[in-house]
Amino acid sequence: MARWDPGTAERLTQAALELYTEHGYDNVTVTQIAERAGITRRSYFRYFPDKREVLFAGSERLPAAVRAAVLDADPAASPLSAALAALTQVGAALAEHIDRTAERRAVIDSSPELQERERTKLAVLTNAIQDALLQRGVDDDNAKLAAQIATIASQNALDRWAEAHGETDFATCLNAVTVSLRDVLTEGIDRRQGESCCARGAERAANGCQRAIVDTCELATQRGEGGLSLP
Amino acid sequence: MARWDPGTAERLTQAALELYTEHGYDNVTVTQIAERAGITRRSYFRYFPDKREVLFAGSERLPAAVRAAVLDADPAASPLSAALAALTQVGAALAEHIDRTAERRAVIDSSPELQERERTKLAVLTNAIQDALLQRGVDDDNAKLAAQIATIASQNALDRWAEAHGETDFATCLNAVTVSLRDVLTEGIDRRQGESCCARGAERAANGCQRAIVDTCELATQRGEGGLSLP
Repeated sequence: MARWDPGTAERLTQAALELYTEHGYDNVTVTQIAERAGITRRSYFRYFPDKREVLFAGSERLPAAVRAAVLDADPAASPLSAALAALTQVGAALAEHIDRTAERRAVIDSSPELQERERTKLAVLTNAIQDALLQRGVDDDNAKLAAQIATIASQNALDRWAEAHGETDFATCLNAVTVSLRDVLTEGIDRRQGESCCARGAERAANGCQRAIVDTCELATQRGEGGLSLP
Repeated sequence: MARWDPGTAERLTQAALELYTEHGYDNVTVTQIAERAGITRRSYFRYFPDKREVLFAGSERLPAAVRAAVLDADPAASPLSAALAALTQVGAALAEHIDRTAERRAVIDSSPELQERERTKLAVLTNAIQDALLQRGVDDDNAKLAAQIATIASQNALDRWAEAHGETDFATCLNAVTVSLRDVLTEGIDRRQGESCCARGAERAANGCQRAIVDTCELATQRGEGGLSLP
């Protein structure tokens, strides 16, 4: 028998998920997981160091894969688009291989220890994206913010994808979350910009219609205008 | 002597920060911190359970304070504006009381254990904001996304505020980070919307100038238009 066999690793993950769901994460032992997967307790430790890591199988390969995909993205893409393109590509492959994402999520949500591990995993992913963006020439601040947003987007997209039970693909979920994030960030701003834009547009209309439209549109799309005023 | 004295807690935090900065987090003991603060090792444990928590003094009060401030925000404010208003208020008070934020950040960045603790603290803060937004009647998805963005914004704002060494106030930093987040999320979209807006505006100009401007502006400010296309 091979020392490490992906088939066995997958069987262990499945056995662990079943047992955690049936009895609760805290009440399950490595011995029980090994038994259900048909291997010895001793063999278990060839695959995972403890009963926690079985839930994160394969996640150690994720940051490098995403980093490579970010570097590989269209050179003209904005920082966030490059990160999201990479996560779409890697996430779609991941989603294909992750069975039982919803069950896994429920187990993780039940344990502070597992949530901590999940957050660490996401932080490592964020750092990988940030590093790749820096290599693409993005400045420090934007690389960090784009990486943080992309990680949040992919995390929420994976949840939504799991909830959709295969009826929506990962890319669609990621796209929808990104649009929602943008809406959350621009709510109350678009409206204000629109109002000021229309008022100024009407004023200029007296002087030259075509030009006024172009000016007005340019005005509406100038980022940074007005900034964000808090109530 | 009172069993718990804020002055002593503050002295312990300062002593810990000095020692961690001088010798590295892993090389400092509770006894050393207690000694430098002029109390016994035994008294130390009246204040903090271990050498880690001294760095997070007061953070347990943060979620409740932010939750209350979110509930207290202008009822007409958007989810994100309500969260940011709350973080501005609480963060400004926090910033006033946190000396040595930059040193604290350097110590935390030096230790995976401390980073884990920091992430847990931020997750608790995110949950508190999310809960408060739900209570304000915001739907599940938007409450979660707004809370996540607000947490990222405040985390980055605190870093920038620390880097500015008192030359910029916390509210200004939070505002700047929020604008940057919006820019990251809308980059490449504003431009496309602007182009399509101007093209359509010009087309309509033939039919009625004033109306075309209004239509064009409305078009530019309709959220969701075009969605987000990934490269």
